[in-house]
Amino acid sequence: MTYCLGICVEQGLVLASDSRTSAGVDYASVYSKMHAFKPAADRQFVLLTAGNLALSQQLVSHLRRDLDYPGPAGNLNSARYLFEAAEYVGAVNLEIQNTHGPALRASGQSPDVTLILGGQIAGQPPGLFIVYAQGNHAAATAETPFLQIGEIKYGKPMLDRVARFDMALEDAAQLSLVSLDATARSNLSVGPPYEVAIYPRDNLALGKRFLFAGDDPFLDELSVSWNRELCEAFQQLPKFRWD
Amino acid sequence: MTYCLGICVEQGLVLASDSRTSAGVDYASVYSKMHAFKPAADRQFVLLTAGNLALSQQLVSHLRRDLDYPGPAGNLNSARYLFEAAEYVGAVNLEIQNTHGPALRASGQSPDVTLILGGQIAGQPPGLFIVYAQGNHAAATAETPFLQIGEIKYGKPMLDRVARFDMALEDAAQLSLVSLDATARSNLSVGPPYEVAIYPRDNLALGKRFLFAGDDPFLDELSVSWNRELCEAFQQLPKFRWD
Repeated sequence: MTYCLGICVEQGLVLASDSRTSAGVDYASVYSKMHAFKPAADRQFVLLTAGNLALSQQLVSHLRRDLDYPGPAGNLNSARYLFEAAEYVGAVNLEIQNTHGPALRASGQSPDVTLILGGQIAGQPPGLFIVYAQGNHAAATAETPFLQIGEIKYGKPMLDRVARFDMALEDAAQLSLVSLDATARSNLSVGPPYEVAIYPRDNLALGKRFLFAGDDPFLDELSVSWNRELCEAFQQLPKFRWD
Repeated sequence: MTYCLGICVEQGLVLASDSRTSAGVDYASVYSKMHAFKPAADRQFVLLTAGNLALSQQLVSHLRRDLDYPGPAGNLNSARYLFEAAEYVGAVNLEIQNTHGPALRASGQSPDVTLILGGQIAGQPPGLFIVYAQGNHAAATAETPFLQIGEIKYGKPMLDRVARFDMALEDAAQLSLVSLDATARSNLSVGPPYEVAIYPRDNLALGKRFLFAGDDPFLDELSVSWNRELCEAFQQLPKFRWD
């Protein structure tokens, strides 16, 4: 399985992903699900992928190839708006799924690939989109500033409560790690290494990209602290008189 | 959708359920999913149901009818062990699903009903079982003292971290409410009223049964407090130096 998320705040974007891929629990591997594209000085994109691994890789190859040899749908450089980039990525994704879908479905596999696309084009605000397997897309907003793909439920309660458009970019990055940790704690199919990319608004280049390995001391400290803080928070709650 | 859970601790059992039932978001109703059975002085059972509402109701009717007119599979009174009660409930559940499954599946509906059965028979320890739609069952243990059915993922992180076999029965009851609240906060298909039943070990009768309506002042206080505590817990975490 996979868990990826993006958070869109006033100061910029955070994109985060786990790296566990499995064909069943007995064939777990590590693959990056985060792909950065810097095709020109005036734009930066980050793509997160969930779903069929082979088709995800094929999609990334097509997007890079199209930068050299633009097809009729254009490429990440020809998009004039971020939503056009999302439309383009959705169209390429759908085409690849349509090509391989029948054979995959015939052998009981899903060709679905779902994406998060974040980035900025000069002169426009940064943006964050979920691009569905069907090719359509939806944007994060100030009211709901986060998007998730893959195994999304375990890590959603914290985002629902803490994610805010006006939170600091570093706090959003920390929140993405907490959400990843919450998911991995409850579901074996999601796990480190975790990747976290920080895009500061109007930077037009990726600010920082971090890789947290499974034995990263900070990750361990965060996980232990979060566990302790949650147990303490539970103890602080008003008590119901059950008697 | 539905979310029900049971927690098995040293001092007894907690069983909790939401009451929202829907055929799509535009036909949401309130139905109790908690059914207590006290068929004899030496035993007490509580059944929680998730899945096809009609078949759940039919199952409960069959279990009550069998107490008056035992069939070849016996009834809740003839079970000598709690696991035999779980086998019996699983067999009746499967029979009803087999009867109505073909017609339901033909119209695109699932006949699946999944159950949590908790209780005690005199002279044996209390027990908690998940009874799958296929009729088989599994028990909660001291290592993993909780069981969930329905929309289980949002409320699992807290259980993973806080639920312990040696926690107080009242704390387990409070934890069940927090887990229900976490689920309802992140998923519209789960909602109050919530029911919480407390079974003290060796009581052989239901200790207490509570109904928390959507406008219950304690529920509101708990939800607001939990939201605040989680945000504060997040602020207490060690900070990563992202710069």
